[in-house]
Amino acid sequence: MPTENNKPVINVQLLMTGNEIMSGHTTDTNSSHIAQFLEQLGLTVYRKMTVGDDIELLVHEIQQIAASADLLIINGGLGPTIDDLTAEAVAKACNISISEHPDAVNHLEHWCGKRKIELNEANLKQALLPKGCDTLDNPIGSAVGFSIKHNNCLIMSTPGVPSEMKAMLAGPIKEKLLSHFDNTQSKQTLRLRTFGLGESTLQQKINEQIPDWPEEVELGFRAGLPILEVKLSINDTAHTAKQQQCLTQLNALVGDYIIGQNDDDLAVACSKALAQTQQTLCLAESCTGGLMASQMTRIAGSSKVFEGAFIAYSNSMKNALLNVPMAPIEQHGAVSKAVVEEMATQSLLISGAKLSVAVSGIAGPSGGSEEKPVGTIWLCYGSKEKLFTHHLFIPSERHWVQEIVAAIGLDLIRRHCLGLDKMPRYFNRYLKK
Amino acid sequence: MPTENNKPVINVQLLMTGNEIMSGHTTDTNSSHIAQFLEQLGLTVYRKMTVGDDIELLVHEIQQIAASADLLIINGGLGPTIDDLTAEAVAKACNISISEHPDAVNHLEHWCGKRKIELNEANLKQALLPKGCDTLDNPIGSAVGFSIKHNNCLIMSTPGVPSEMKAMLAGPIKEKLLSHFDNTQSKQTLRLRTFGLGESTLQQKINEQIPDWPEEVELGFRAGLPILEVKLSINDTAHTAKQQQCLTQLNALVGDYIIGQNDDDLAVACSKALAQTQQTLCLAESCTGGLMASQMTRIAGSSKVFEGAFIAYSNSMKNALLNVPMAPIEQHGAVSKAVVEEMATQSLLISGAKLSVAVSGIAGPSGGSEEKPVGTIWLCYGSKEKLFTHHLFIPSERHWVQEIVAAIGLDLIRRHCLGLDKMPRYFNRYLKK
Repeated sequence: MPTENNKPVINVQLLMTGNEIMSGHTTDTNSSHIAQFLEQLGLTVYRKMTVGDDIELLVHEIQQIAASADLLIINGGLGPTIDDLTAEAVAKACNISISEHPDAVNHLEHWCGKRKIELNEANLKQALLPKGCDTLDNPIGSAVGFSIKHNNCLIMSTPGVPSEMKAMLAGPIKEKLLSHFDNTQSKQTLRLRTFGLGESTLQQKINEQIPDWPEEVELGFRAGLPILEVKLSINDTAHTAKQQQCLTQLNALVGDYIIGQNDDDLAVACSKALAQTQQTLCLAESCTGGLMASQMTRIAGSSKVFEGAFIAYSNSMKNALLNVPMAPIEQHGAVSKAVVEEMATQSLLISGAKLSVAVSGIAGPSGGSEEKPVGTIWLCYGSKEKLFTHHLFIPSERHWVQEIVAAIGLDLIRRHCLGLDKMPRYFNRYLKK
Repeated sequence: MPTENNKPVINVQLLMTGNEIMSGHTTDTNSSHIAQFLEQLGLTVYRKMTVGDDIELLVHEIQQIAASADLLIINGGLGPTIDDLTAEAVAKACNISISEHPDAVNHLEHWCGKRKIELNEANLKQALLPKGCDTLDNPIGSAVGFSIKHNNCLIMSTPGVPSEMKAMLAGPIKEKLLSHFDNTQSKQTLRLRTFGLGESTLQQKINEQIPDWPEEVELGFRAGLPILEVKLSINDTAHTAKQQQCLTQLNALVGDYIIGQNDDDLAVACSKALAQTQQTLCLAESCTGGLMASQMTRIAGSSKVFEGAFIAYSNSMKNALLNVPMAPIEQHGAVSKAVVEEMATQSLLISGAKLSVAVSGIAGPSGGSEEKPVGTIWLCYGSKEKLFTHHLFIPSERHWVQEIVAAIGLDLIRRHCLGLDKMPRYFNRYLKK
């Protein structure tokens, strides 16, 4: 058995099933989720197999994998239709029969009862499981999962519906894995969400400034632009204090770039900062065309901090909607300091909001000139009392220009509310020289 | 050898490599693309294997697959770094050596020369390929692909960068596959984009109304909500007339639900309809909060047909931004016929646009009441001359309420411009009874 750090490595394999993912009509995101879930338990996926709804092939693969793996997680094929083959395939591979499992029948009766629908023949098929298996509770859907030991391999079967699979992983499967494998540890991961720092910059800063980083706290990164996620993981709750100490040190080092935790994005961070300081926001968007507004309003309850937005895409709308006089537009062009400041001022006046962000720029691909090439952006934010204006240059593909400008706009409001550095490092890259 | 319709089936397998996809930190979308590309050539993927950057495992899998498959496409592992192992693994599996391939060196010299950068040692590693292989041109990146025959299996290696992989598939790989395998056909697919019809409804309508559908034209569906893609595929250009005839029949049957072709979405369809009829649009969004505006402005050149939007999220903004009097807001509430009609009227007046869509609703999860539960929407669209108002009910998750309302709003403008049915079938589902 292969070893790592003197501990025997657990051979984990995945078997993903379904014609939809095989043909590419559906992109498989379940296996990413399973791999990340297992990582939290200290388990690494060694090999992943994907096949269509083909009983012979399924049986063959399960036999092959079970001969060498310690853990096999199968995803998909638990539904009520004829092409749902997982229970049958596992039973054949293990050379046992399938029979109605009383726990599964119970689950189905309960599930149908709650929905006031009759338990029919098709549904009952979902209770036919390999003889001697244990069921894995599905808190959402009608199909239970199951687990069974074959050779030295623990086989676990999960539903293909993502929400059902996730609930099953977090509940019965996690519990079973922790008790079944000696080497598993429930990893505790702090997920910090950062904006405006690159992975290599951050790593270098940590190397230089936190040389005594404890080895018990594993540092990981995951880029999901415009956000860089920073993960601090420990294998044992005994190290919680060290994890917290790393967090404190990171906060001291780059705290103003940490916008939140878990799944927070810039709109969430901006909303929280506004709520915390009891301020409201309005937006005056030209080149971002409503992107900031739609990000803000995707958040439930955003009406508490968000008044609304002026999407002044055409020049005449800048005048009609925001009372921006035509003179500066004609003199300096719509993408100019004078116009963007007027947009911010007027949006504050009309909306009564405490803070505003106004942007006007050339997102491209057309509309650029030698003087104002594609990527030229003017951004103004602040309050009636004080506005801050920046000239940015973000030469990129249209959609990216819009995404980056929106992220910067919301980040600057967050920084403003929280009293953080108003000249973040990313200005080195984006400020027009 | 397995057969289907008396033709021998070509056994196609994929080998996806990379620690990033194995750990789930990156979701593999390349294999979906490869599978769909192969489908166009009449090739079906039988089995897909995913492994990390592990030379022994790679060699083992390549040997195993090459023993049974007719075609193996490997993705990833062609870069210049130490964990890029594909060329070495293929050479070992085929029991041959690797050596500098003159075509690959040429490509690298040319690639570096164009970018005025020096060809370094790391880059030159990308020219080390299995002896005797053919190179596959990479029109974008530095890494060439390669193909080599082992046993009866044609092995092809492609880069992991999606844009490079796609270019290589569409160019040298397509050409090679068509000449290598007798049974391949270059499928011609018409991709129609529809909104507002379910797959089963459409299939049933076709069964009933077009009973003589020619078997040479394969009908396929792909749901990517809110759009349903309908595919008409033929295996031979001799059937182009039949494909066109099906398109004509579909247009007669459900033409007003076909919003475009290829990758068109509702904003593109709406933009085209506006441009075609030389009309301009403005928006007055409350519950969708800028989603329609951001969809419209994601399209390059949308300034020709899109004036801007009023994102009146708070009640006071409905008054301040759109001059909606406070009286109807106080009397009927912000989610009401009176308010949404006033929003549309005022947005047309202020913006000077020819057409407007106004929406006000309760996207949830909070804010609902017994009288106006979550999902209650008022939508008004039209011109100064004539407005149309609808009371919708879309009880769904917040984000979905916003997505569906935005899709309906843009579709109704498209229908209005093109003179199509103003009471589409989806109103059966969404109109408040």
